[in-house]
Amino acid sequence: MARLYNFSAGPATLPEEVLNQVRDELLDYDGTGMSIMESSHRGKPYAAVHAEAVANYSKLLGLGDDYAVLFLAGGATGQFAMLPMNFLGAGQTADYVNSGAWAGKAIKEAKTVGQVNVAADTSTDSPTRMPAHDELKLTDDAAYLHICSNETISGAQLKTFPQSTAPLIVDMSSDILSRPVDYSQFSMIYAGAQKNLGPAGVALVVIRKELAETGNQKIPSIFRYSNQIANDSLVNTPPTFSIYIMSLVSRWLLKEGPENVYARNVEKAGWLYESIDADDFYTGAAQLDCRSDMNVTFTTPSAELDAMMIAEAGEAGFSGLKGHRSVGGLRASIYNAMPAEGVKALADFMVDFRQRKG
Amino acid sequence: MARLYNFSAGPATLPEEVLNQVRDELLDYDGTGMSIMESSHRGKPYAAVHAEAVANYSKLLGLGDDYAVLFLAGGATGQFAMLPMNFLGAGQTADYVNSGAWAGKAIKEAKTVGQVNVAADTSTDSPTRMPAHDELKLTDDAAYLHICSNETISGAQLKTFPQSTAPLIVDMSSDILSRPVDYSQFSMIYAGAQKNLGPAGVALVVIRKELAETGNQKIPSIFRYSNQIANDSLVNTPPTFSIYIMSLVSRWLLKEGPENVYARNVEKAGWLYESIDADDFYTGAAQLDCRSDMNVTFTTPSAELDAMMIAEAGEAGFSGLKGHRSVGGLRASIYNAMPAEGVKALADFMVDFRQRKG
Repeated sequence: MARLYNFSAGPATLPEEVLNQVRDELLDYDGTGMSIMESSHRGKPYAAVHAEAVANYSKLLGLGDDYAVLFLAGGATGQFAMLPMNFLGAGQTADYVNSGAWAGKAIKEAKTVGQVNVAADTSTDSPTRMPAHDELKLTDDAAYLHICSNETISGAQLKTFPQSTAPLIVDMSSDILSRPVDYSQFSMIYAGAQKNLGPAGVALVVIRKELAETGNQKIPSIFRYSNQIANDSLVNTPPTFSIYIMSLVSRWLLKEGPENVYARNVEKAGWLYESIDADDFYTGAAQLDCRSDMNVTFTTPSAELDAMMIAEAGEAGFSGLKGHRSVGGLRASIYNAMPAEGVKALADFMVDFRQRKG
Repeated sequence: MARLYNFSAGPATLPEEVLNQVRDELLDYDGTGMSIMESSHRGKPYAAVHAEAVANYSKLLGLGDDYAVLFLAGGATGQFAMLPMNFLGAGQTADYVNSGAWAGKAIKEAKTVGQVNVAADTSTDSPTRMPAHDELKLTDDAAYLHICSNETISGAQLKTFPQSTAPLIVDMSSDILSRPVDYSQFSMIYAGAQKNLGPAGVALVVIRKELAETGNQKIPSIFRYSNQIANDSLVNTPPTFSIYIMSLVSRWLLKEGPENVYARNVEKAGWLYESIDADDFYTGAAQLDCRSDMNVTFTTPSAELDAMMIAEAGEAGFSGLKGHRSVGGLRASIYNAMPAEGVKALADFMVDFRQRKG
């Protein structure tokens, strides 16, 4: 069978040339006589992979030595817990923006650790949206301000980031390295790998070393950012094979040219929104100024037509278009690795479907 | 290059037929038109993989419905923290046996959470060893008794398990499913996958459901065993690709016949210990009755000869024989997937090296 166009929200499609390389060297990595997944995490072959991944992501994010690049097991949900365990001490309050399902999960986990102020809540708004900067009700001396930059489920994306006196910490799981961003405005960002970076089960965490040093030192060592920095993410055996794939994805992104990938992302999303806006058949889920370039969410005139479209699209080779079980409708996730021709073909399919059913 | 005999302690060698299958279906899993690592964790293809992994490990361990089988991101070190977070409440004491480096790390993490009683300490003994059952000084009403069944670094293995009124919890990272064991004597076992089960970055956790229910409900949801059980390890996106490989390893173990693999492990270890015991050239690190069948640790008459042997073995196609950086010497890790012919060849090489240098 040929490879489908896979619009899954995550785990998501990966660059085909990355997968080809993974396949070709699966039993013998770089002449070592073993798979990289069988190679010691303390040995030279893996150390070189790890170092390249750190260097490439640091370069792609445009960050200096005041930031550490970590690869931590557990995805973004692990960070929902680890973050407040480090930085939300007794008597402190952390500001969280509740912009949807993912921000809501981060808030729920933080509340098991300490005091949370919900600085704004757009989680149930329809059309879906992100709060404007001036809607945020921030706490004086907050431990930090936490934002989710792109709500994968609702399809709303924060286009610019608020200024903050408290450390600004952003969950960028579904839009990291997908658009031009000045990453130096953040004290910390993190992203589950399974959308724009690699396979599920590992998170990229980028953190100001100065902030990490202020973390609670009395929690288990595996959860202390400062300890992970001191050990270059090797406090324990890291998910080496996943980090290897992340290193290949970073190499692919550098080769493609991040600015080209970012421009292509705008173009790709534009094609789908154009099909949505052509008449009243499709309804975009997100407010116009918050439309995500990563997760395009929409509905047809009825749940029956939604289901019919998902089924027909599936037969036509477009996979993973079903909206999240919590909201329904359709969702096309078009991360960096989704080829432009796949998105163009889906946009054309949308036009065709409307003409047949509208 | 041909595949080497890889004696690394972990990440470790995997069955070649498993790697061949992973390679063959890397870009198109089972006709789905995508890699299993690109497949949604909520979709049917991955759900079937996950269900097979749960069923196979449950069968291999011989456990009933009163136990849950979980796959959790983070390896055994994650469990060092998660375990006391769940079960070591304020005012309680947990008994820990300190049998070496790994048990020591578990103790260190537990102490960040609560009160620990070290029931026995053989961590600095030489020859390396496990404490006898009657050496344990247990606490009345301990929250649990924690043991590491095989110390990967020292090469000491616990051959039988003590009776305990407190829940018996065992870190079996380096010897799970390597020998006949009645697993129903344990309230919980866990194992980082990267030795006998699959790639690094995930742990197999097997726990009595009744025990899980007693866990602290006020910790982050991702760390609550009861919540992971309720969600079949899918509280968050699990390390799907790693679990897929674990499912293939479980299938391989069932096909080989676990009893055959266990018998072969005794035979494999026997060949190496025979080479060690043939005269005074080699010295085994572990006390005779505690010798591990998974990690065979030994020295030659000098550190110079140790280094020379590691180098010559490397040239002869035996990789990963250097002892852990904390203890030196040599270590041959011979998990389930290490072919018998590789161990036989190493045993012969040891005889040859002694004849040339002894």
